Amino acid sequence: MISIDIVLLWLDLVGVFFFAVSGSLLAARKQFDIVGSVLLASIVALGGGVIRDIIINAGPPIAFTNPAYLAPPLLAAMLVYFLFSSVQRFTSLLTLFDAGGLALFCITGTLKALTAGVNPVSAILLGVTTAVGGGLLRDITANEIPTLFNARDLYALPAFVGAGLTTLLWHLGTFTGLTACIIAGVVFAFRVTAWRRS
Amino acid sequence: MISIDIVLLWLDLVGVFFFAVSGSLLAARKQFDIVGSVLLASIVALGGGVIRDIIINAGPPIAFTNPAYLAPPLLAAMLVYFLFSSVQRFTSLLTLFDAGGLALFCITGTLKALTAGVNPVSAILLGVTTAVGGGLLRDITANEIPTLFNARDLYALPAFVGAGLTTLLWHLGTFTGLTACIIAGVVFAFRVTAWRRS
Amino acid sequence: MISIDIVLLWLDLVGVFFFAVSGSLLAARKQFDIVGSVLLASIVALGGGVIRDIIINAGPPIAFTNPAYLAPPLLAAMLVYFLFSSVQRFTSLLTLFDAGGLALFCITGTLKALTAGVNPVSAILLGVTTAVGGGLLRDITANEIPTLFNARDLYALPAFVGAGLTTLLWHLGTFTGLTACIIAGVVFAFRVTAWRRS
Repeated sequence: MISIDIVLLWLDLVGVFFFAVSGSLLAARKQFDIVGSVLLASIVALGGGVIRDIIINAGPPIAFTNPAYLAPPLLAAMLVYFLFSSVQRFTSLLTLFDAGGLALFCITGTLKALTAGVNPVSAILLGVTTAVGGGLLRDITANEIPTLFNARDLYALPAFVGAGLTTLLWHLGTFTGLTACIIAGVVFAFRVTAWRRS
Repeated sequence: MISIDIVLLWLDLVGVFFFAVSGSLLAARKQFDIVGSVLLASIVALGGGVIRDIIINAGPPIAFTNPAYLAPPLLAAMLVYFLFSSVQRFTSLLTLFDAGGLALFCITGTLKALTAGVNPVSAILLGVTTAVGGGLLRDITANEIPTLFNARDLYALPAFVGAGLTTLLWHLGTFTGLTACIIAGVVFAFRVTAWRRS
Repeated sequence: MISIDIVLLWLDLVGVFFFAVSGSLLAARKQFDIVGSVLLASIVALGGGVIRDIIINAGPPIAFTNPAYLAPPLLAAMLVYFLFSSVQRFTSLLTLFDAGGLALFCITGTLKALTAGVNPVSAILLGVTTAVGGGLLRDITANEIPTLFNARDLYALPAFVGAGLTTLLWHLGTFTGLTACIIAGVVFAFRVTAWRRS
């Protein structure tokens, strides 16, 4: 049987990749070069997790100790640079990848906090911080008004729902790889629906 | 007799509330919705203290371990949303609440550093960082030039005075709830006078 | 013989001074007053190192425990305020001092990570983060697009080269005060050449 740690690592790495693509797409729209693209991808993809690990205060952030975390931003910057340079529908793509990252990070962030022995309320808060932190850093760094504050869009609420469901299932003892995927699907659908209606 | 810890907690929570109101008022001026208002209030109110606790490096920041710290931002966002939506004199109100937060945080921030066994110079520095950190995050997040850098206004200086007086009284053994309130009054008056003359 | 710790401290303090001057020059261009100049100088000069120390997670950041780190920002702000207020060629000077800070910080940052027992890849990453962190904070705080993302300029690459060379020489056992100065010279020349050609 696959341990929860392995599942957590893979979900985290996929979330890192999704956020990295959103960073590279914004870099492409802002006409940054390939180095700027790698950097913005890294800030978005690793920023939320670094903030989470600093707050949990259990040793150096994983992004700085496990080199596997450097692969997704590099891969994302390459892909976007060679494939999407002519694509005009940046905003839709950016939002979809961002929603994917949000859906996975609110789960992995909450889970890391719970396994570190944090109380439920703080675990939810840390999950949301992990999920919205990277995107907030992306928008601040690129000098845009953060998506988080768009009055006609819902961004933090789906993350709250995901972090809340994760905490609930964890305490009920029914958190598995399957239920994790269901939560991720719900959060992703909620986020994309909210964005479409705005 | 009331212990210094209880006094510290209450002063800190009142400071959190004041800064939260300043964040919600800026959110209202920027026409963010209620969720954006809660988020900006939380960033301003808890940001300075989170930075301080991360720097002192004595376990996870209190805002993530004591759920009482979540009440002031929620309360502030509600109040501003329902009471002040039609008020035009945002700038004056924002500055007054911000000055209240500044006056309390330069004291509680310095005190936390001193009780953690930090040297006097660093304690003053941490107090000022706590006091100006939240407002700096607020202005950066909302894409404004930070108040901190307004050439015709004094913002960091009152915080330095407050942190310095707190350190002095602490080492003289005359820091009490009463002297804390006097320092807060001095800092508040200094800050508001500087702003009026600018 | 002079110990590596003393060399490290001095290189770090000189790097702090260089970055502080770049911060004060930007403050002068933005017409901040002397307090704003000290603050922006401090954020640039100490920001990168504070981020590095928080990530290494080995006690409070050195900028908050060793008061010597406060001297360079104060000195830099004074110098710029009294000497350069009439100088028009802000951009050239700012870039030269910024390059000096970059060259020294990618070495001292990497070295601190290596002596803390971090693996080589993470050490390089931390060195680059230290080197570009302060400048990134400076540009974000002053509401400018970070130099880091200028498509026609190379900013992160010289820092990567410096951090890589430092890690290599450290593992070969040939890292000395002399080789440190040579690496700094190479990084500085690389950065300035890249900027001239852009």
